[in-house]
Amino acid sequence: MDKVRLAPVGLGRWARVLARGAQRGDLIELASCFSRSEEKRAAFQEEFGVERAAASYEELLADPDLEGVLITTPNDTHRDLIVQAAEANKAVYTDKPIAHTLEDAVAIARAVERTGVVFAVGHSARRLSGHRVMKRWIEEGTLGEVSLAEANFSNERGLELTPQTWRWYASKSPGGAFIQLGVHHADTLQYLLGPVRSVTAHARRLYTESEVPDAVMAILEFESGPLGYLGAGWASPGVYTLNLLGTKANLRYDLDFTHWDESHTADDYSTLRSQAYRETERPLVELPRTDMFREQLEEFALAARGEGTVEVGAAEAIRALAVVRAALESSERRGEAVTLTEVIQQAGAASAVG
Amino acid sequence: MDKVRLAPVGLGRWARVLARGAQRGDLIELASCFSRSEEKRAAFQEEFGVERAAASYEELLADPDLEGVLITTPNDTHRDLIVQAAEANKAVYTDKPIAHTLEDAVAIARAVERTGVVFAVGHSARRLSGHRVMKRWIEEGTLGEVSLAEANFSNERGLELTPQTWRWYASKSPGGAFIQLGVHHADTLQYLLGPVRSVTAHARRLYTESEVPDAVMAILEFESGPLGYLGAGWASPGVYTLNLLGTKANLRYDLDFTHWDESHTADDYSTLRSQAYRETERPLVELPRTDMFREQLEEFALAARGEGTVEVGAAEAIRALAVVRAALESSERRGEAVTLTEVIQQAGAASAVG
Repeated sequence: MDKVRLAPVGLGRWARVLARGAQRGDLIELASCFSRSEEKRAAFQEEFGVERAAASYEELLADPDLEGVLITTPNDTHRDLIVQAAEANKAVYTDKPIAHTLEDAVAIARAVERTGVVFAVGHSARRLSGHRVMKRWIEEGTLGEVSLAEANFSNERGLELTPQTWRWYASKSPGGAFIQLGVHHADTLQYLLGPVRSVTAHARRLYTESEVPDAVMAILEFESGPLGYLGAGWASPGVYTLNLLGTKANLRYDLDFTHWDESHTADDYSTLRSQAYRETERPLVELPRTDMFREQLEEFALAARGEGTVEVGAAEAIRALAVVRAALESSERRGEAVTLTEVIQQAGAASAVG
Repeated sequence: MDKVRLAPVGLGRWARVLARGAQRGDLIELASCFSRSEEKRAAFQEEFGVERAAASYEELLADPDLEGVLITTPNDTHRDLIVQAAEANKAVYTDKPIAHTLEDAVAIARAVERTGVVFAVGHSARRLSGHRVMKRWIEEGTLGEVSLAEANFSNERGLELTPQTWRWYASKSPGGAFIQLGVHHADTLQYLLGPVRSVTAHARRLYTESEVPDAVMAILEFESGPLGYLGAGWASPGVYTLNLLGTKANLRYDLDFTHWDESHTADDYSTLRSQAYRETERPLVELPRTDMFREQLEEFALAARGEGTVEVGAAEAIRALAVVRAALESSERRGEAVTLTEVIQQAGAASAVG
């Protein structure tokens, strides 16, 4: 098979992380690229050996050789870029969150449905080996019944944001730490435990100078019964944890996410510990090596060729974003539980989540 | 100084834990004891070398040599026993929670105030070395500003309860895991971060056969700004954790609480790890050796003699119990934030918390 020809769009730090992921395999050719900045295009071409670059997004999409695009632009630009790409019949991979609002996410889902293009959202975290093992232990019954699930994803970014970056602004990144970091766990927790029914949350802007919350805590009520806690902060050293408490065993996952970008080594900097019923010892669980960015891009590339499907499409990504929206809504209502159904229906997204 | 003469009341497992704590020091004489069961009295006398035992609670309190009582009976019996002891002018130490309802707690606080007896509540957890170090790091500014605090105290008890035990019943142990385990962290978190303003919570009875919740999650809003998460479950292997996320550093505390009962060794089975700003390494923090049960009982004994005061009296214990009450109320209101002021005023406890 000849390589699948994809083009990164928005050539910042994250485009480079994904490009390195794609180039760790042999399935994908970075056939072109686009950024509004000519300088960035040239630098990206040089760094990754990309032969072509487009001078405009329209020119990129008009390229008949190009099979798909990899969107890593700011969240509030996803909608227009994705709708245009879908209408040009290109497969679309976009970084998470699918969009900055549920309304934009619905417009994206409709365009994808209308055009029938392959569409993938980069909720890569569920692919971390530790989370794959958790899923298997749940399915095989090793955990028994899960009653409590606890997750935190935090770092110091809120203390370092400047007005020059889009994440500073509530209109572009509503929810701050929760939409940028928490949304990862919102996907992973639903991957592990099924759909969230309602969200009870408080969001605070405590120490950041920016417009967005740097301390968010949410309680998730899952349709399957358990309660989930999701914390996301932007005012502390980095934390990435996910714990499951089950009737037969607990599992604790901990990742040093400074190695997140180089996803082929991330498993080396993470630990999964189990604790069986009536035991206090917490032995390490072996983690098979994974490479989340490479794997999701290769899955997307194959799907773009009609081979297989993507694991995370619009429906899953909207469910993750809906947790964020429900959390912000709940915080405005002093913690009152807000159902996912409510925020999904408000946004006209009911058909998009199936 | 001759030893302070105290008498355990309710001679079950916890009375023995405390007796061992008292006997690790030289300050306290277990001068008498009382249980309704003659068999238990005899066994306790034998095990701890207690010379006398009272055949009734009235007889115990009439003993002019006795300076104080150590109450370890079921939560719903605290009020009557404590009020009687106060009226007999005995100093009173009671295990946590102060009572099973705020109304009973208020009656206790009033009796203590009216009689002027020394009164201590066994919120021992804050005395664990890891929590003492956390407090010092907050006060010295080493953590910077705390934005998120996360605590969990869970074990498997809900899966093992039988109708023969008082903890089975909602009328005797309202809140289940949250009033028995969570209340420890409700005190410790307020010790570390100051008063809680409001509580947002969900309580569920998922896998226990008993009448009480075995899965509770609460978000605490502190008057000082940070958000707190408090999880307590009764349907999993044991967990005791408390994490603080600050602008300059994080601290993670983890205790294997199977060693909790022998509190002079608890620090050997706990770890405190720090993580500084921009660092991912989490070095261990040295924990000076403590002995929470011995220390709180000796503090109480000295206070009963007029030397010093107790750290946790009615006001602190009511604030911890109020978090439990507010959590249950919030859960009934689908997560809506319930202020501590509201539940404290409802119970007529405003004057008792100062």
